[in-house]
Parts: sequence; structure tokens; C-alpha cells
Amino acid sequence: MELLRQKVINEGIVLEGQVLKVDSFLNHQMDPLLMKEIGRAFTQLFADTGVTTILTIESSGIAPGIMTALEFGVPLIFARKQKSLTLTEDIFVETVYSYTKKQSNDITVSKKFIKPGDRVLIIDDFLANGEAASGLARIVKQAGAEVVGIGIVIEKSFQPGAQLLIDEGYRLESLVRIRSLDNGQVQFVELPL
Amino acid sequence: MELLRQKVINEGIVLEGQVLKVDSFLNHQMDPLLMKEIGRAFTQLFADTGVTTILTIESSGIAPGIMTALEFGVPLIFARKQKSLTLTEDIFVETVYSYTKKQSNDITVSKKFIKPGDRVLIIDDFLANGEAASGLARIVKQAGAEVVGIGIVIEKSFQPGAQLLIDEGYRLESLVRIRSLDNGQVQFVELPL
Repeated sequence: MELLRQKVINEGIVLEGQVLKVDSFLNHQMDPLLMKEIGRAFTQLFADTGVTTILTIESSGIAPGIMTALEFGVPLIFARKQKSLTLTEDIFVETVYSYTKKQSNDITVSKKFIKPGDRVLIIDDFLANGEAASGLARIVKQAGAEVVGIGIVIEKSFQPGAQLLIDEGYRLESLVRIRSLDNGQVQFVELPL
Repeated sequence: MELLRQKVINEGIVLEGQVLKVDSFLNHQMDPLLMKEIGRAFTQLFADTGVTTILTIESSGIAPGIMTALEFGVPLIFARKQKSLTLTEDIFVETVYSYTKKQSNDITVSKKFIKPGDRVLIIDDFLANGEAASGLARIVKQAGAEVVGIGIVIEKSFQPGAQLLIDEGYRLESLVRIRSLDNGQVQFVELPL
């Protein structure tokens, strides 16, 4: 997705620890037109999957997720990272480890919103170690529903998450794929056109 | 906003402690068409304000916020509820108390994204005690920018937040206003047409 690559090139900041900071357009300040284009891109990539539900995780997955949901005309569910006082029973729970925050979180989804027969597209902003996406996929399986695909805005292809998800049999589509952040430089898997 | 009132009437669940659970369409599962209509409604209500920036807070403010930002053609910023490892310097911080979660949180916004001269519209999903909206407004003031309005999806008018914000001089527009949740019943300030 060329618009997104340009944003990464122009505004992405490489920090220590293989962190790519994209807080000017993706996960703190957000460009709504870019989000709309991201939603369109995922809709084209997964057009043939019969998706009935979009599933993401708070917080940075919500904007790409709602735009994808709008394009598909299906609901968005966002998993919560800790139990809420108003959601204490009848939830699916999976534990995922955040390498960024160096802690494990329970991610939860109400059992009301994913049912057997649902065809669920998982959307998230980043894929690094695959913990969040894999945890969301396990929740879909708990529900007896099917994961029809995993759509990622920025994939850090040099970390193990992408291969992990492919090995688990999931259809993975990432809008940009980063090969390396070494020496403070963003290198893409494919070069921009 | 009639569509929203109907959703509250048909799907809202009144819990103990004056909690209105709307997790089927607003803050866990989300209806993207409703979010789009919410964005349009805020755009009409604040059309004359010259807004340059939308500010909300994770997580449930993000979907209404991004749709409002899309309609206005301006960026959305979402405040974070705790410090992230990739955002450690150059942040505005305010402490707000969550009555739902019974704890204080630091809410943070990068100083890069709000500047003197910005005309900021604050968007949030719920208004009860006004802690979050008031904290966001204090961040805008710290930045030397102007709050042009506060747009709320569901106002619990029987709690003190609305009057507090009005007394502080803010222009407040809420899409639905709830007068009472007594006896498990939702009563609106104005009756639906």
C-alpha cells in the first residue's frame, strides 16, 4: 500500500529495540483518510472470504478495524486487555505477552459477540511476535468460529510473528512489510514502486 | 439522534450502580454505520467552530472520534491512559479518576500533536462525572490551544459532569441525554420523536 509506505518513510521514527514509532499517523495521532484507505485495502484483500465479523484489540487496532468493518458492512469487536467491571461473566479469555510493555495481559471478548458459524477477520496495527493476533485467533477458536484471515497494517517481517501465523495455517495479509530496522533505517520487504 | 436512541432502547442494559451497558454497539462490539452517523452528527453540531483537531481518549472514544475526524478532514489524537514505553518524553499529562474502574489514571498526549492556535474538538463515548472530558480539556489548555467544543455520544445527565463542563464555559453537545436509569429503565431528557 503505497500511501502507507510513504507515511512510514516520511514520518516513521526508528527507536532502539527494533521499535518503529508511527505515532503521527497510526497509534496516537491518526490520519482518518489513511485509515479509510487501510479499510478499503483490507476489504479488497479479503473480499472472497465471506467475513461476518471483524475482531481487533484495543487501542490502536480500533481505527483500522472500524474502517474495515464499515467497508464490509459487518460489526467490529475489539478485545479488551483487562477485565472491565461491566464485563465480568460470559467472556472468552486468552493470555498474551506484550514484548513492548514486558507484561502479560488477559485479553477478553464477550461470548455474546462471536458464535459458531461466524467468519472472523482479525485486524491489528502491528505484527511483531504474533502474540496478540495469535491470542485473538485462539478466542475465535474457543467460540467455535472460523478465522478467515489476519490483516496487519505494519508487519515487522524480521520478527517471528508472521511465520508463526502462516505455520498455524492462517491467511496473513500485511499492508507493508518491514525487512529491517537496523542502523535506524526502514527497509521494506518489497521496495516501493 | 434517533438511531442512537433506538439502539439504547433496544440494546442498552441497565446494571447496578447507574451503569448503562451498551457493549453491543458502542464500546465492545461496534456498529460501523452507527459510528459513521455519529461522526456526521458531530460534524453538523460543530460545523461553525473551525475545528483543526479531534481529541479523544482510548479506547471507546476512538471509533466515534475517527469518524468525526474523517467528516471534518482533520487528524484524530487519542490520549493514552498510561505511559507507553515509546512515549516517555515531551508529553502533556493530567490525572483523572475513573469512577467505573475506581482508580486514577494518568492520561497523556504527545506535545508534538497539539500546538497553540489549534482548535480542538473533544469527543468521548460517555459523560458521567466529567473526569475524562475535563482532563482532556486541561491538556488542550496546557498546549495553549482552544477547546471549541465537547461532543458526547451518551450523556448521563443525572450525574454531575454535564453541568461541570458547562460551568467551566465549554460548549457541550450530547447525542443522547439520559435523565434516569432508576428501576432498570432508561429515561431520556427529551423523549424520542
